[in-house]
Amino acid sequence: MSTTLLLKKELRFNGLDGFIVSSSPNTTYLTQFPNSDAYLLAAASGLTYFTDSRYTREAQKRLKGIAQIKDIKGSAFKAIAESCTDLGLKRIGFEERHLPYAEYKRIKKGLYPGAYLIPTHGIIEELRQVKSAQEIAKIRKALEITALAIEFIKDFIRPGVKELEIAAELERFIRYQGAMGSAFDIIVAFGDNSCHPHHLPTTRKLTPNELVLIDVGVDYLGYKSDLTRVFFLGKINSLARRIYEIVLKAQAMAIKKIKPGARASLVDAASRKYIAAKGYGKYFVHSLGHGVGINIHEEPSISSKSEDILKEGMVFTIEPGVYLPGKFGIRIEDMVLVTKKRCEVLSGSINK
Amino acid sequence: MSTTLLLKKELRFNGLDGFIVSSSPNTTYLTQFPNSDAYLLAAASGLTYFTDSRYTREAQKRLKGIAQIKDIKGSAFKAIAESCTDLGLKRIGFEERHLPYAEYKRIKKGLYPGAYLIPTHGIIEELRQVKSAQEIAKIRKALEITALAIEFIKDFIRPGVKELEIAAELERFIRYQGAMGSAFDIIVAFGDNSCHPHHLPTTRKLTPNELVLIDVGVDYLGYKSDLTRVFFLGKINSLARRIYEIVLKAQAMAIKKIKPGARASLVDAASRKYIAAKGYGKYFVHSLGHGVGINIHEEPSISSKSEDILKEGMVFTIEPGVYLPGKFGIRIEDMVLVTKKRCEVLSGSINK
Repeated sequence: MSTTLLLKKELRFNGLDGFIVSSSPNTTYLTQFPNSDAYLLAAASGLTYFTDSRYTREAQKRLKGIAQIKDIKGSAFKAIAESCTDLGLKRIGFEERHLPYAEYKRIKKGLYPGAYLIPTHGIIEELRQVKSAQEIAKIRKALEITALAIEFIKDFIRPGVKELEIAAELERFIRYQGAMGSAFDIIVAFGDNSCHPHHLPTTRKLTPNELVLIDVGVDYLGYKSDLTRVFFLGKINSLARRIYEIVLKAQAMAIKKIKPGARASLVDAASRKYIAAKGYGKYFVHSLGHGVGINIHEEPSISSKSEDILKEGMVFTIEPGVYLPGKFGIRIEDMVLVTKKRCEVLSGSINK
Repeated sequence: MSTTLLLKKELRFNGLDGFIVSSSPNTTYLTQFPNSDAYLLAAASGLTYFTDSRYTREAQKRLKGIAQIKDIKGSAFKAIAESCTDLGLKRIGFEERHLPYAEYKRIKKGLYPGAYLIPTHGIIEELRQVKSAQEIAKIRKALEITALAIEFIKDFIRPGVKELEIAAELERFIRYQGAMGSAFDIIVAFGDNSCHPHHLPTTRKLTPNELVLIDVGVDYLGYKSDLTRVFFLGKINSLARRIYEIVLKAQAMAIKKIKPGARASLVDAASRKYIAAKGYGKYFVHSLGHGVGINIHEEPSISSKSEDILKEGMVFTIEPGVYLPGKFGIRIEDMVLVTKKRCEVLSGSINK
């Protein structure tokens, strides 16, 4: 089903005759046109796309037959309120988590009497959980570039190189491959820096026999990849090797549990229980994984508290980690696609 | 005056006993600690900084004596409402343009009876217009790296190179200099691509006798730079040379008008009138400049409609441009600091 049809169904289901999409990832999803200065108004009669003169020409080309384009001068939200009136909309949903209070007031003021705004959340986010073939193709391409980047960067992992140099080389390489850039601030952590899950690259130089943790993603036409690998330089510390094997096994055990209908919390539990049984439970400090698509973190959540049920077409990370304070951290992160019967490890070709 | 003192003065001036800062550039400004997952509550008794466990340790170190740190688990806005109650706050301002409707409702629900939320806008943005010595030092450093990057990239401007390769090399170089990265998507435009002011790099290859427009900025500890230069490869088209001279002169005429007390609209007019007199008025399609600091675009606005009056300590761009559809565009962009009597061109050392 096309996203436009899905959207109309959602409107009926939620008893709305209009719906204002103000979240930029959500407008990108509905149009497949990444543009952070655009808004959508959905109604039974069709979609209206609001953007400014910088983007109207491209929008007209790309959204032909999908949406009517309105060139906004001044306030987008005033223009949206006017369109609501023109279309005679009465029950107008809006995204309460993605509309600032001031814009809410502005739309409200612009509506004719008898029309009212209804807060909603998660309508489009819910649709976004299951990826279309077109979306999966973009994610695959982002991962392809990630794979090339990981292969490329191996030659740079030498004593004396700085964390931020590795990050800079990755960023450069990714852009040479035609991607928009990295999908998030690249994490490069040497030695004990790796014990912070969100460490950002510093001028620290690599010394012999240190481990290198790289967490990198690519943005390809608005769709993201997310991957973590750990490299060992020189002699491998035996504790690090042991932890690496535990994390790798924990990841495999979670992947085995993935199939349509499975509870995300049980997938998380598969990794968590194994790591706990090995005595490192309290060092696995984050959830097992997260959906990836237009946002680097989106639904579903693969965590102990998640109530999500896996469906065919979902794409998410599986990234167990063990972080020993002051020593090192090991995280192994891959991306999976839920298939009809089980799952495909989309990053499976990237050596661990 | 310290920003904390300025803030307290603003609270009194606005008749507030509490103020919730939910905009991330604004919290960065008040703390000089770039962290997009943080919120502030200001009251007469002092500042409270809300962040999660990933950042609390660093925040405690950096905000010692400036703010009390609260480690949030779950909803930040629920925690903020609780603090409002603990502090007995009654008239609590919030940033209506930077607080989603859902969070507004959540705070409101959490307040005790008798306390209420008051929409405000622009309080911190107003303070941010005038830069402190500490802020100016960061902007100078961002421009220093920009200057090195422009010098560095000259060697890459050769027939056969692609737009996105130039962008990738700039990004890599910037990071090697210790910056967080570029301040915005780098614009690299060859030949007629330069007639789109916001062109993004493509795989187009440079051919002999084409012009190259590069618009690049650096993010240094949260503060930005913004600079545009045009390079000519081989034989210079005589119309392009003529336009270049007009734009350069237009820029100089605007810079001459800059001093404390001057109207921003008259600075814009100085460039605009000159370009119009030369017959290219309708091809200067954007405003003359914009403030730069934590945001790449912030106040003041240097445009024909601006009501801003220049003050000592303001930092903004002066970037006249002429875009001939289907032919080429020329933009020259520098950054200036308003001084006691006139202005300093912060990027003055970068050759034009």
